[in-house]
Amino acid sequence: MRRRLADARVARVGTVDEHGRVHVVPVIFVLEADTWYSPSDTGKRPAKRLRNLDADPRVTILVDVYDEDWSRVWWVRMRGIGRAVEGGAEHERAYRLLREKYLQFTAVPGDEAAGPTMAVAIQEWSGWAYSP
Amino acid sequence: MRRRLADARVARVGTVDEHGRVHVVPVIFVLEADTWYSPSDTGKRPAKRLRNLDADPRVTILVDVYDEDWSRVWWVRMRGIGRAVEGGAEHERAYRLLREKYLQFTAVPGDEAAGPTMAVAIQEWSGWAYSP
Repeated sequence: MRRRLADARVARVGTVDEHGRVHVVPVIFVLEADTWYSPSDTGKRPAKRLRNLDADPRVTILVDVYDEDWSRVWWVRMRGIGRAVEGGAEHERAYRLLREKYLQFTAVPGDEAAGPTMAVAIQEWSGWAYSP
Repeated sequence: MRRRLADARVARVGTVDEHGRVHVVPVIFVLEADTWYSPSDTGKRPAKRLRNLDADPRVTILVDVYDEDWSRVWWVRMRGIGRAVEGGAEHERAYRLLREKYLQFTAVPGDEAAGPTMAVAIQEWSGWAYSP
């Protein structure tokens, strides 16, 4: 599961909003040990997925592959506790790892890409594959 | 958004579980008018995403495309009210539409593919694209 996850290029991250509804959005990410990091844009206020953590820090992360050959389909789901990291050594390290994984990221102007990082301490893994 | 959604082959569906945590899973689907349908396997008990509807029927559905050319990235998110449909004309119609969209589905044995359908009455659409 860890290998599949590390190689994946996109994850869908779920949080609960202030009305108790699910918020889901696709994001890029890196995994370092048991912490999952995802960047956000700078903006007038933090991204919705980060604001949601104030009331409920529980995060569900899904990584999956769909293939028209259904024998290749699989998913990995992680649950953990999220927090926003803004500035500092951890933020810098996460952004360095993201730039190493996504070459495209180096082309995004720094002032657009430097929003708070979502850091999720992974507590639980589960997964499924069509082919055992 | 509707065209992008109808053409998509996989969606990620989010519900809230009995502990108020987000449950997210990838699924195949069809859209008919303003109702979104997704099948489930037969099993000893209904799929988690269907059981979750008993306490909270609110469903969030995400369809997105990731591409290494980030100018092609987009997502569409829908919110609605879900229910489990088991047997009857609506269930049969949903499965017929699913078999038309996914030729692979015809190869899945009927007794494995005939679990309850998740039907979601879509109430809200939102979306984003990297390129306007």
